[in-house]
Amino acid sequence: MTITSSPTDHIAIDQQAQDLLFREARSANTFTDEPVGDDQVQAIYDLVKWAPTSYNQQPLRVVLVRTPEARERLVSLMYDSNQAKTRSAPLTAIMAADCDFHENLPSQFPIFPQAKDVFFADPAVREESARLNATLQVAYFILGVRAAGLAAGPMSGFDSQAVDREFFPDGKSKTLCVINIGRPGENAWWDRLPRLPHTDVFSTV
Amino acid sequence: MTITSSPTDHIAIDQQAQDLLFREARSANTFTDEPVGDDQVQAIYDLVKWAPTSYNQQPLRVVLVRTPEARERLVSLMYDSNQAKTRSAPLTAIMAADCDFHENLPSQFPIFPQAKDVFFADPAVREESARLNATLQVAYFILGVRAAGLAAGPMSGFDSQAVDREFFPDGKSKTLCVINIGRPGENAWWDRLPRLPHTDVFSTV
Repeated sequence: MTITSSPTDHIAIDQQAQDLLFREARSANTFTDEPVGDDQVQAIYDLVKWAPTSYNQQPLRVVLVRTPEARERLVSLMYDSNQAKTRSAPLTAIMAADCDFHENLPSQFPIFPQAKDVFFADPAVREESARLNATLQVAYFILGVRAAGLAAGPMSGFDSQAVDREFFPDGKSKTLCVINIGRPGENAWWDRLPRLPHTDVFSTV
Repeated sequence: MTITSSPTDHIAIDQQAQDLLFREARSANTFTDEPVGDDQVQAIYDLVKWAPTSYNQQPLRVVLVRTPEARERLVSLMYDSNQAKTRSAPLTAIMAADCDFHENLPSQFPIFPQAKDVFFADPAVREESARLNATLQVAYFILGVRAAGLAAGPMSGFDSQAVDREFFPDGKSKTLCVINIGRPGENAWWDRLPRLPHTDVFSTV
């Protein structure tokens, strides 16, 4: 890799992948009616599942909302500005953190199967870790949707406690965000918003 | 895109990018002494900064730990199992959430500059949103490190309150994780750990 003044030279994935994942990808606000199949969702998961979490804990749980009845239940719990796009998306995914992820640690983290009891006996510790790691997995999934050539429309504007009650009635999972998935429709995006300069984000000690 | 029984056919980025970002990438536990320059870090940020956050809020703040003195201060706050690798990494980044991100919303979310006061006046709401969105940005950054052909070693095992006090003395930022960055060294990884089958993660309504 040649080091020059152009930042792109440091990146090892090709320009098409960079653009599809980051530079040209946008959060879609409208969608075509082309369906998103379970096989596409599974392909996305089978790619992004390899990205890292603490103790390989994998707390992400996803409800795919497909029936008109379930979609209306969800739409009624979204803030006004998110209702029309959620109603029109071919697929909507509710992304949540399973606060009982520790039950899977003996099989998922066989290096130290005692992690379940040694580190995660306290429900408050567990919920904090579940939220952090499931949120990492949400980000991996968003980029996976883009890697599949689809547009993601992640939303945080909804009544999260009501969504928990309605879609995770066992009380173990906490909803983090809701993502519309599909091909972008007409007028799918706003103008590109600015980003902070790296000097506002990074400091060195 | 042809739809067949092979999940990979649904993915639009090439095999090399898929492998570099997900399938062959691993969390490194050892590193060579090849330095990681500020130009590489900036290139990573200039790619991943485009990935989405709620209201374009961008709460991620990063301290790059470079001096031997700062590194020892950090190492002393890491759990035992993370000390040797943190000491040996060419670069270590402390990833935190700026709970006063709302100050940037008028410039970063000009569509609705009132968001700063309408949605984020409450410090508790702000901290929850900062943690969620900075964690999304941590995940984007981890994949960006991999996109640059480098290995990331993200860690959650440290005294986070002490790291906050030591490296974010203004009290506004909450540390989420610490990431070692560099070229993988000898015996850099454990055997690949398993992942949950998609049927354990996804359900449909």
